[in-house]
Amino acid sequence: MPSAITVNSDLGESFGLHSFGHDDELLTLIDAANIACGFHAGDPHVMSTTVVNAARAGVALGAHPGLPDLTGFGRRQMALSADEVRDLVIYQVGALSAFIAHSGGKLSHIKPHGAFFGMLSRDEDLMRPLAEYAARLGVQVFGLADTAHQRAAEEAGAQFVPELYVDLNYDRNGSLVIVRRPEATDPGAAAARVKSAVTSGTISADDGSTLTVQFSSICVHSDTPNCVEVAKAVISALQECQQASRPERQTIGQA
Amino acid sequence: MPSAITVNSDLGESFGLHSFGHDDELLTLIDAANIACGFHAGDPHVMSTTVVNAARAGVALGAHPGLPDLTGFGRRQMALSADEVRDLVIYQVGALSAFIAHSGGKLSHIKPHGAFFGMLSRDEDLMRPLAEYAARLGVQVFGLADTAHQRAAEEAGAQFVPELYVDLNYDRNGSLVIVRRPEATDPGAAAARVKSAVTSGTISADDGSTLTVQFSSICVHSDTPNCVEVAKAVISALQECQQASRPERQTIGQA
Amino acid sequence: MPSAITVNSDLGESFGLHSFGHDDELLTLIDAANIACGFHAGDPHVMSTTVVNAARAGVALGAHPGLPDLTGFGRRQMALSADEVRDLVIYQVGALSAFIAHSGGKLSHIKPHGAFFGMLSRDEDLMRPLAEYAARLGVQVFGLADTAHQRAAEEAGAQFVPELYVDLNYDRNGSLVIVRRPEATDPGAAAARVKSAVTSGTISADDGSTLTVQFSSICVHSDTPNCVEVAKAVISALQECQQASRPERQTIGQA
Amino acid sequence: MPSAITVNSDLGESFGLHSFGHDDELLTLIDAANIACGFHAGDPHVMSTTVVNAARAGVALGAHPGLPDLTGFGRRQMALSADEVRDLVIYQVGALSAFIAHSGGKLSHIKPHGAFFGMLSRDEDLMRPLAEYAARLGVQVFGLADTAHQRAAEEAGAQFVPELYVDLNYDRNGSLVIVRRPEATDPGAAAARVKSAVTSGTISADDGSTLTVQFSSICVHSDTPNCVEVAKAVISALQECQQASRPERQTIGQA
Repeated sequence: MPSAITVNSDLGESFGLHSFGHDDELLTLIDAANIACGFHAGDPHVMSTTVVNAARAGVALGAHPGLPDLTGFGRRQMALSADEVRDLVIYQVGALSAFIAHSGGKLSHIKPHGAFFGMLSRDEDLMRPLAEYAARLGVQVFGLADTAHQRAAEEAGAQFVPELYVDLNYDRNGSLVIVRRPEATDPGAAAARVKSAVTSGTISADDGSTLTVQFSSICVHSDTPNCVEVAKAVISALQECQQASRPERQTIGQA
Repeated sequence: MPSAITVNSDLGESFGLHSFGHDDELLTLIDAANIACGFHAGDPHVMSTTVVNAARAGVALGAHPGLPDLTGFGRRQMALSADEVRDLVIYQVGALSAFIAHSGGKLSHIKPHGAFFGMLSRDEDLMRPLAEYAARLGVQVFGLADTAHQRAAEEAGAQFVPELYVDLNYDRNGSLVIVRRPEATDPGAAAARVKSAVTSGTISADDGSTLTVQFSSICVHSDTPNCVEVAKAVISALQECQQASRPERQTIGQA
Repeated sequence: MPSAITVNSDLGESFGLHSFGHDDELLTLIDAANIACGFHAGDPHVMSTTVVNAARAGVALGAHPGLPDLTGFGRRQMALSADEVRDLVIYQVGALSAFIAHSGGKLSHIKPHGAFFGMLSRDEDLMRPLAEYAARLGVQVFGLADTAHQRAAEEAGAQFVPELYVDLNYDRNGSLVIVRRPEATDPGAAAARVKSAVTSGTISADDGSTLTVQFSSICVHSDTPNCVEVAKAVISALQECQQASRPERQTIGQA
Repeated sequence: MPSAITVNSDLGESFGLHSFGHDDELLTLIDAANIACGFHAGDPHVMSTTVVNAARAGVALGAHPGLPDLTGFGRRQMALSADEVRDLVIYQVGALSAFIAHSGGKLSHIKPHGAFFGMLSRDEDLMRPLAEYAARLGVQVFGLADTAHQRAAEEAGAQFVPELYVDLNYDRNGSLVIVRRPEATDPGAAAARVKSAVTSGTISADDGSTLTVQFSSICVHSDTPNCVEVAKAVISALQECQQASRPERQTIGQA
């Protein structure tokens, strides 16, 4: 088990008067925030407020750039060139970083959103510009292990943080099944997935087959109806695993 | 006469496949570029390209944030709060600064665009957030002398660069008459205005009255049909004024 | 008391995955829906769904065109020309009417939204294009009595439906005080305003002065937190007034 | 040879102050206009003006709905559901039809734009909503013969108008090669393609193989630099073909 598994959430996905998610409660629970940058959700004022609140809560401040598709919440795949990916990333990360700098903080990581996340996981040419930009800024890349996310990040020299997802299904190849409007996740199932992943390094795919997973952060989406409950279940499960593993570690430590 | 009067233009106002302005030719002539940030014009790819070209041309790289109104080209006044101004400025300047940093350059100044420019010139409460952000970043503010632009910039501790406009009319109070779609400017009239402004410190308002003007940079808009010709006429006029004033200076220098 | 006072609400103000308002419950209570057209809120899919639901509920189907400002929810005033107003109205009303025709219904009225509503109430030149378009289509105009709404509608020959507002304050001149993010309205106060308006034709302005009001429809906004409760209180108050006035009518009827 | 081959162009693709295309000159040459509806290009004012000008020129007035992607000019494929296609089409066609009705005209046809055109040509499930809506309105569908365009239109009972393209390449399977930013087309090559298509019913694909083409309208894009010249060459070629075929017809007529 990795020494410190963190919990992250996508935040700042309100837009104008349209509230979204459960940011205030999640900020008391999570370790890292992936903050929307105005393309799939968020707007300058929402970003400003979210950065201030997240900085105050002491969580790591990450950029969550998405496709330019507010209506589709960045969940509709779109044909982009590598140059377009680079410019979308620089624009959005730059805008968010300005709010972070203004609040006295520092950007910690970049995680692509929704269909953008999926596209970049499957195409190293598209992922490379994001990875290179992260390396240049000296920030981490959050993504899916053993995909173009990880390969491009490592080639570019950016630190890669592999994630486990508890509210999305994995197909038998280890790809995430992205949905447009997520349903409530069973907190018990989320906790069970965490325990399985932490203790055995495996989880079940949507066809029942066993997948090996590698991760050092767990993503809890903020737009499932019961995400706060899910986050709490995940954190409890993590704590249980840590307590269970602690004596053994002490024994090793004493040897 | 100020020792070094510069010439600046608003650039990067193309959008997607929609070309705009005469950036390539102007970049060979001007000293400073005010680059659109995607709200009134420009998009991430246009910004990326414009920054690279402007950096290569050796001009000063400024941000030109505008109202969130692509259809109206940022030329339709919009009721904003001071907090909204602050967040619009941080977002746009942050995005542009990321492209500038990526190209190895450094942001030099901020100049509000169109109706945003006009609103901020008339309302110190709205101008203050822009001025304070510029001061914090240590960059100049371009604007209209003796307006809220200058007052807020000076109060905030930002260096203020007053501009002279050669392709817009001034009313008798010294306010600029902003139009939606500018017409061709007579290069001769532009040159005459520059000479009058440099030698006597005055120009004519649209009602024929005489206005005192204070400036250290001259703005040539890039969306008049003959802006390149106007820019050349302005530069020639500036050079004539400098040659006329040089002997006197040398005399002083020899004393 | 007018023979049939209706209750109307602004609906269809969700956007993509961002839910908004309380449309389902309100549709069981109200007589007329003012449906957002995609500029201040709503999107093609939300419009399609809202039209189908409103048609099924049997309410009158109206268009609720707004300013092109999704982030500001159409509540930030914007300088527009009369031609721009005309084209914004034709575009939005046309788009909504296509969904209405597709569902087998018929457009009944047009009501401008938010800051657009306010601008048009104060400027007959801006209101005229909307009024003329409504007259041409043979549909009603909803708005504020004794303002440019009514004058332009009547001049254009469109039927005008004056509204009473129960969740916004009136200033001493009878203008509505538009706010960006409405707070909960006291249902008792809303009911009291309705009773006062129906029985005495007057209500209290925000400075305590007495205003004469003229109306045949009552607007209940759908974005106050307790709008469903407010709508129920308004409808109860209307029913009480009707019962109180019924005997008298019967007497008249028998005479 | 079909008795009346028409020429059509995509018009109204300006946006705000950003001019685009060569509408005024093309309107003196073509038979049918496919007018942008504000999603990939165009805005309410541009649509209003384009409809008035096209109606005055006496050309057939068609809707040219596109993907919601102004930056990409609707040329970046986007994953949409059939319901989303239906709602995007109803919204855009409805908005344009309102301007057409306001100018006293009548919608004649619908032609999808750019990547939307390509997506619908390959997927009958996506094409069906557009075809059914056209059938319901009693208007023609313009598209590519022998693709889902034609199949869905015919199944829905909409009249299908197959097009020939003179400024895009066809691949060996008869699909169009859509590019983001078209280059100048050789007018001589365009004329030669028209003559070949009219006289032999075949053209050359980009790999030199021979394709059979079926068409009754020729599309000349308005965003190639020399589109007016191309349109003139196409029309001359059509006239030459007609003159060449006329004597024969007269013989038949006299029989």
